[in-house]
Amino acid sequence: MSLPSGDPSMVRGQELRVWSAYTQLLESLLQLEKAIKDRVDLLIQPQRPVSTEEQDTNLGRLMRRVTTLLQSGETSRPPAASPHTPRAVGAHAQDQLQHPPGPLRVTYVSSELSNRGNDIMTLLNFSFQDFMSFLGDKFHKDENPLGFINLGVCENKLCSDLVTKRLSQKDMDLIEDTLLQYPDRRGHPFLRKEVAWFLTHYCNSHAPLDPENVVVLNGSSAVFSALVTVLCDPGEAILTPTPFYGPFALTASLYTKVHLIPVHLDSEVSEENPRPFQLTVDKLEQALWDAQLKGKKVKGFLLINPQNPLGDVYSRDSLQEFLEFAKRNNLHMIVDERYLLSVFDESVTFHSVLSLRRLPDLSRTHVIWSTSKDFGIAGFRFGALYTHSKELAAAVGSLGFLHGLSGITQYKLSRLLQDREWINRVFLPTSHNRLQAAHKYTTICLQGLGIPFLKRGSGLSIWINLRKYLNPCTFDQELCLHRRFLDHKVILCPGKACMCSEPGWFCLVFAEKLPQLEQGLFRLQQALLEQEQELTERLVANTMRE
Amino acid sequence: MSLPSGDPSMVRGQELRVWSAYTQLLESLLQLEKAIKDRVDLLIQPQRPVSTEEQDTNLGRLMRRVTTLLQSGETSRPPAASPHTPRAVGAHAQDQLQHPPGPLRVTYVSSELSNRGNDIMTLLNFSFQDFMSFLGDKFHKDENPLGFINLGVCENKLCSDLVTKRLSQKDMDLIEDTLLQYPDRRGHPFLRKEVAWFLTHYCNSHAPLDPENVVVLNGSSAVFSALVTVLCDPGEAILTPTPFYGPFALTASLYTKVHLIPVHLDSEVSEENPRPFQLTVDKLEQALWDAQLKGKKVKGFLLINPQNPLGDVYSRDSLQEFLEFAKRNNLHMIVDERYLLSVFDESVTFHSVLSLRRLPDLSRTHVIWSTSKDFGIAGFRFGALYTHSKELAAAVGSLGFLHGLSGITQYKLSRLLQDREWINRVFLPTSHNRLQAAHKYTTICLQGLGIPFLKRGSGLSIWINLRKYLNPCTFDQELCLHRRFLDHKVILCPGKACMCSEPGWFCLVFAEKLPQLEQGLFRLQQALLEQEQELTERLVANTMRE
Repeated sequence: MSLPSGDPSMVRGQELRVWSAYTQLLESLLQLEKAIKDRVDLLIQPQRPVSTEEQDTNLGRLMRRVTTLLQSGETSRPPAASPHTPRAVGAHAQDQLQHPPGPLRVTYVSSELSNRGNDIMTLLNFSFQDFMSFLGDKFHKDENPLGFINLGVCENKLCSDLVTKRLSQKDMDLIEDTLLQYPDRRGHPFLRKEVAWFLTHYCNSHAPLDPENVVVLNGSSAVFSALVTVLCDPGEAILTPTPFYGPFALTASLYTKVHLIPVHLDSEVSEENPRPFQLTVDKLEQALWDAQLKGKKVKGFLLINPQNPLGDVYSRDSLQEFLEFAKRNNLHMIVDERYLLSVFDESVTFHSVLSLRRLPDLSRTHVIWSTSKDFGIAGFRFGALYTHSKELAAAVGSLGFLHGLSGITQYKLSRLLQDREWINRVFLPTSHNRLQAAHKYTTICLQGLGIPFLKRGSGLSIWINLRKYLNPCTFDQELCLHRRFLDHKVILCPGKACMCSEPGWFCLVFAEKLPQLEQGLFRLQQALLEQEQELTERLVANTMRE
Repeated sequence: MSLPSGDPSMVRGQELRVWSAYTQLLESLLQLEKAIKDRVDLLIQPQRPVSTEEQDTNLGRLMRRVTTLLQSGETSRPPAASPHTPRAVGAHAQDQLQHPPGPLRVTYVSSELSNRGNDIMTLLNFSFQDFMSFLGDKFHKDENPLGFINLGVCENKLCSDLVTKRLSQKDMDLIEDTLLQYPDRRGHPFLRKEVAWFLTHYCNSHAPLDPENVVVLNGSSAVFSALVTVLCDPGEAILTPTPFYGPFALTASLYTKVHLIPVHLDSEVSEENPRPFQLTVDKLEQALWDAQLKGKKVKGFLLINPQNPLGDVYSRDSLQEFLEFAKRNNLHMIVDERYLLSVFDESVTFHSVLSLRRLPDLSRTHVIWSTSKDFGIAGFRFGALYTHSKELAAAVGSLGFLHGLSGITQYKLSRLLQDREWINRVFLPTSHNRLQAAHKYTTICLQGLGIPFLKRGSGLSIWINLRKYLNPCTFDQELCLHRRFLDHKVILCPGKACMCSEPGWFCLVFAEKLPQLEQGLFRLQQALLEQEQELTERLVANTMRE
């Protein structure tokens, strides 16, 4: 991790802090050693007292202190040997998530908040700051033509007319006692039944799915959070290929203290990897092995299919291989299928894991789905889990009292999912047509600008390569380019936020209404022209200096 | 903690497990001692290597192992000395929450779930099992006259006709893009504005409250969970008087790993404590001091006002004293005011902390409110935080991406809160009248049965004393009586679930529609008669044996 160069007084202050941490660690370790000796003495003496509560409390306190000091990272380097490499507060959290370092990131430190409170502020504020800017200053063709255009958050805004019309129909409105009172924390039975039927049909399941194995919570992040909470203890890990959808990482790390171990995919193409960012079992095995060597306990494997932001849709054979890999390594297989109805290229076939006849490890295969992406109603805050394990459904459902959604929303969702006629004849054909058209418009524009991208047939975004606009090609420069986009009032999602290992990639959401998309792409072009111009000027200046 | 007497083979199995845990602990402690020695050697040698990552990982792993073993509780007793007092897995969690022990509680152990997953299953399943029975077999006068009547969950069901009518009006329905898309994670600005206005008015604030200091999440448990997450690190604690509303305890302990330190109030009346269960600053100071002596880091003080389940409404002077106590001890003051509009006795005046002109510690005073209790719409899953600290509002709001509620629900809530005409002229007068009538009906019935209770003028439940039906007067017997109620298809909330320190108290919800209330009280009476009869029979049998 590269570090910003600070002013000398700041560096000195940090050096002192490192010394103090060193002393504290030494002291705490010696105290802990003594406490352990005492505890062992107690254990091996023949007439042991019944209560050891006090000693255990002391031991626990000392261990927490040592852990905190070790985790602060400040004691891992000898202060005298490298006084100029201090580490910022909260840096451990940054490392885990591999978020960008440097000048554009503000570490939050408040004495009023807990350590995790400060980490939450640092990471979430960083992650959501663009979105907050957008909310405060949205583009509107007539009322706010200079407002932000957001092509960085994966939302399908192409069919809101259809959805609004359907949701406004009379059958959607029901207010009755059951909907107003405390519900089953796993979700109302009527909605779980509809979700089971819906997934049976659209995931092409060979047998009807069981509503008792469905859990409904407020959004897929909440589902993921609850799922990893009951599967993993703090410090344990989940494996996932990157680049991938960012918020899951925040959720996992900050609230549940579960680590995400990235399986870094890259754009290099070779004989074994004919496609850029190709996921293979070899890469999974290698990442798992590396993690285990570092002492990580990996409990699960998160696969996104159709993949976001790459747009890859995995073949039946690949899926089977990934499932075998999970089974071989005793990993829970979590498949995020939130884009299952957003495959708009007719030549591409999506296979749900629920469609496979022979699942290698039935009770450890779990699917996350929501209507946020496929129906463009992220504001409904709906997410569902389908798991083959009734035990896991019960455990995740237990957390529903913290992640429930309102009864009236559950009712509307059940009506929506029930209306197959409308979904099959009106919504899906229109949605796919519009996604195709917006995708085509965007890719033609990208081609015109000479921007390389992955051409896929699913999802709401395109994974584009802007490394030619970075000099040097670093994540710092990627963030600078991102900042330039913000200056031009257009938001894209930088690859680093998707934990991409190569700088220069961006996620561009195309499922946006035409006026916004047009204007957004125009602003992107303007920003890139400006960037190009600056790079040229810098090059000229450097050449002249030489 | 008393323990159930099991069959001999089970006891033997548990004994073996205790031996094995003993060996494991001893081994782990010795390994940890060695690891600490190595780490200290590294720290004090003059030429220290820069990276100590591997050693630290090992140290962390060993400490986690020791912690897990210590927390399992199995090693705190010498197995040989007391072979018949084994401790069940997950018992540490039971102790923390002071939940009932014994034969009616099933400890969940699954190798598929994490330790916290098992704890969650154990505690939440226990807490919600009555409610799940009720959901699966609800009383209905005509369709299911033998179904459960639930007088154990605090819900106001008396005004659902009014609320249903209001929510069904035309102005409630709006479907538009903003409501369908990702919202501000702190809640939509239009709703935060209404909440600020609403609380300004009904909490009698001398200055208008700021919508930027409001955070809207999906339920007050979610608000509490998010709040303690950003205020406390795992292992830190919040002080709260008990008996108190149970689910907060589950939330705090299971998801956020924050401990609740009870300030046990009791029914004894003396010169200094003229009221049973009276809260005083002395008791708070004592509990805080005890907790600190045990090495607990207490970060906050949770006060419920109007109190649930006691029904106490604190005077302005008492509030001021509690606030001074919090200030003096650097504690965040969290006031749960969810029953603020449920004060139905006209002689009782509620004072919100937001009404006080001089708050001792402005930025550390936080209020939780929701519409679940006052409006009887728990199914809306709405909870709000008002804090004087913008920083805290931002931090709690950050977790809104896991605890958001749907846009359409937010819209309906904003319309509801806006309609002062309806609230003041229709809803509140009717609600208070009906609460009064139901309270009167219930207390007359209790008097008829000779059951002592606290007579208060707020809330939805009555705190009743059934200790005369327990012999011996223990928590095990309290649970047996509770089970007898279930046999009679009526649910009450036992005092132990509210962390009451005296066995025999129950919380009886009276805000129920008349047919259910009538039938519920009849069943209660039947169950108590049966209990009385059994006690008499047992007494006779014992006398004859002597």
